[in-house]
Amino acid sequence: MATVKAYAAQSETTPLAPFSISRRAPFPHDVVINILYCGVCHSDIHQVRNEWGDSIFPMVPGHEIVGKVAEVGAAVKKFKKGDMAAVGCLVDSCRTCANCSDGLEQFCETHSVPTYNGYEMDRKTPTYGGYSKMIVVDEAFTLKVSDKLDLAGTAPLLCAGITTYSPLRHWKVGKGDKVAVAGLGGLGHMGVKFAAAFGAEVTVLSTSASKEHDARRLGAHHFVVTSNQQQMKSVKRHFNFILNTVSAPHDYDQLLGLLKTNGTMVVVGVPPDALPVSAFSLIAGRRSLAGSLIGGIKETQEMLDYCAQHGITSDVEVIRIQDIETAYDRMIRGDVRYRFVIDLNSL
Amino acid sequence: MATVKAYAAQSETTPLAPFSISRRAPFPHDVVINILYCGVCHSDIHQVRNEWGDSIFPMVPGHEIVGKVAEVGAAVKKFKKGDMAAVGCLVDSCRTCANCSDGLEQFCETHSVPTYNGYEMDRKTPTYGGYSKMIVVDEAFTLKVSDKLDLAGTAPLLCAGITTYSPLRHWKVGKGDKVAVAGLGGLGHMGVKFAAAFGAEVTVLSTSASKEHDARRLGAHHFVVTSNQQQMKSVKRHFNFILNTVSAPHDYDQLLGLLKTNGTMVVVGVPPDALPVSAFSLIAGRRSLAGSLIGGIKETQEMLDYCAQHGITSDVEVIRIQDIETAYDRMIRGDVRYRFVIDLNSL
Repeated sequence: MATVKAYAAQSETTPLAPFSISRRAPFPHDVVINILYCGVCHSDIHQVRNEWGDSIFPMVPGHEIVGKVAEVGAAVKKFKKGDMAAVGCLVDSCRTCANCSDGLEQFCETHSVPTYNGYEMDRKTPTYGGYSKMIVVDEAFTLKVSDKLDLAGTAPLLCAGITTYSPLRHWKVGKGDKVAVAGLGGLGHMGVKFAAAFGAEVTVLSTSASKEHDARRLGAHHFVVTSNQQQMKSVKRHFNFILNTVSAPHDYDQLLGLLKTNGTMVVVGVPPDALPVSAFSLIAGRRSLAGSLIGGIKETQEMLDYCAQHGITSDVEVIRIQDIETAYDRMIRGDVRYRFVIDLNSL
Repeated sequence: MATVKAYAAQSETTPLAPFSISRRAPFPHDVVINILYCGVCHSDIHQVRNEWGDSIFPMVPGHEIVGKVAEVGAAVKKFKKGDMAAVGCLVDSCRTCANCSDGLEQFCETHSVPTYNGYEMDRKTPTYGGYSKMIVVDEAFTLKVSDKLDLAGTAPLLCAGITTYSPLRHWKVGKGDKVAVAGLGGLGHMGVKFAAAFGAEVTVLSTSASKEHDARRLGAHHFVVTSNQQQMKSVKRHFNFILNTVSAPHDYDQLLGLLKTNGTMVVVGVPPDALPVSAFSLIAGRRSLAGSLIGGIKETQEMLDYCAQHGITSDVEVIRIQDIETAYDRMIRGDVRYRFVIDLNSL
């Protein structure tokens, strides 16, 4: 057992503050990682403030983790001391059910273990995330990271990256496709980078006209302000695929109307309440409204390798952990381009 | 021009009553069909009563038409006098756009011509449906019908049949699939017959426990009463595919929860208002909610041929046209097993 410095919320109403946690002594298959950077995901805020009603306190958030291997268990094959390593949203699952066998550990039929705000497979040991100096994770859930990429910009790939990469791959988005990315935040900006890298013609749909310059810099070919009726009309029945990253309440039917026949809109943002969908929006063009959740371990590694090969990282603003509450406030105002990443040296 | 006996509604508040319509003299590619049977679709009621707000009066409903060829235009190749013929929901489209070229005339990008309550390609000649003695239709939109099948039971295949056949085929439902059919009405009973014929394991989800015997007779292997919590729990995350034929308000999220990872629910019923959908229902299992609208001409012919080969028809109650208002009242009460079909001899 090791005592490790962390930042934790003691309840849904208390701010994050210094805290000490214990990490297990490594099992034979474990990798001990000294955390260098941890991205700040909007779901950190939801869970710290118990907005999804399933929070476990004390809570150490953080599931976009990049660091350096400090030690490995006797049976570890993929990593050695000094390697770069990463951990995303999951640290374990049953590994034997149909979904785990298909590389979809995020849908484990038994129990998938979230990196924080959850319990290990024993269902009683709480998990603590990356707002901490060190983490111990089974090598099967530890990812390899290229040292060619900017490490701070790599951290958000572990959630924002795979969350957008996975649906674009699953629905085979590529050359010849007209793709819209709705919302240009932490998820959306990665969606634009990937869709453009895969060869699609990319349009950003945003409420903020001020984001056009950035959208084009990130790789978008077109930009539509969703409140502009004229612009929205010009893209009616226009897209094969919409990656919807918006987590604020919005109009699903309006966006579905932008899909061609057989088009699909995939939601990766989770608005607070259910949103109305008209059967006509789906029927008029054999359209699909689908959802996608992060990605499995194998695909996450594939995504990291793709990013290393194509020089893709997240656009980040590096912060000290002492500034986390200010960062949360700015995120809620949408004032971040496009991801905060904590430099754990500050802890 | 021919003057033809029909039944029409003069306004959204007047009952159907005898009326005379004109049918065009056949163009070279036209088929003149003496109508023998016409199925009664729930959308006939919606449109006669202007519940979708787009009704054109006077209206002669009916788009499940079976009859005998009385005469053909000089250029007609597929039909000769005396052949059996059928007409479904469409009688024309642009025939050149991307969707028409893909055999999806129901999604014609220019203008698809509904069999009734619409206008011909000239955008001004109103179309009149099958509650009449005769119809004139281009052979490209006229279907061939086997004389081996019961003709009255064949009529509903033109709408209820293709509406359920098409999504089951498009989403490749077959052997090894666990399929639910939600709602056991005109559409649902055809969905059960097709899904079972394609080799799937079929479960009917119904609000009426009294329909279990019928469901099994039609080919269902299992029956679940949707108000029975215990039964619903037993099919959580159970189905690959749900064919949702329900047009009353209901809980999409509850049904989405019955889908396995990567499962799809296709809606073919149109509830009066948009229904709430939670992003979680879609994200938790990469599920899809999709819509499907009848089917193209080529697929409708394929469906009719499949039915002839496998002896599939609709379960019908044949009525005289004078009893149409009583039939509507019974349909609204759900008192029909499973489709009314008008015998046009009565007109």
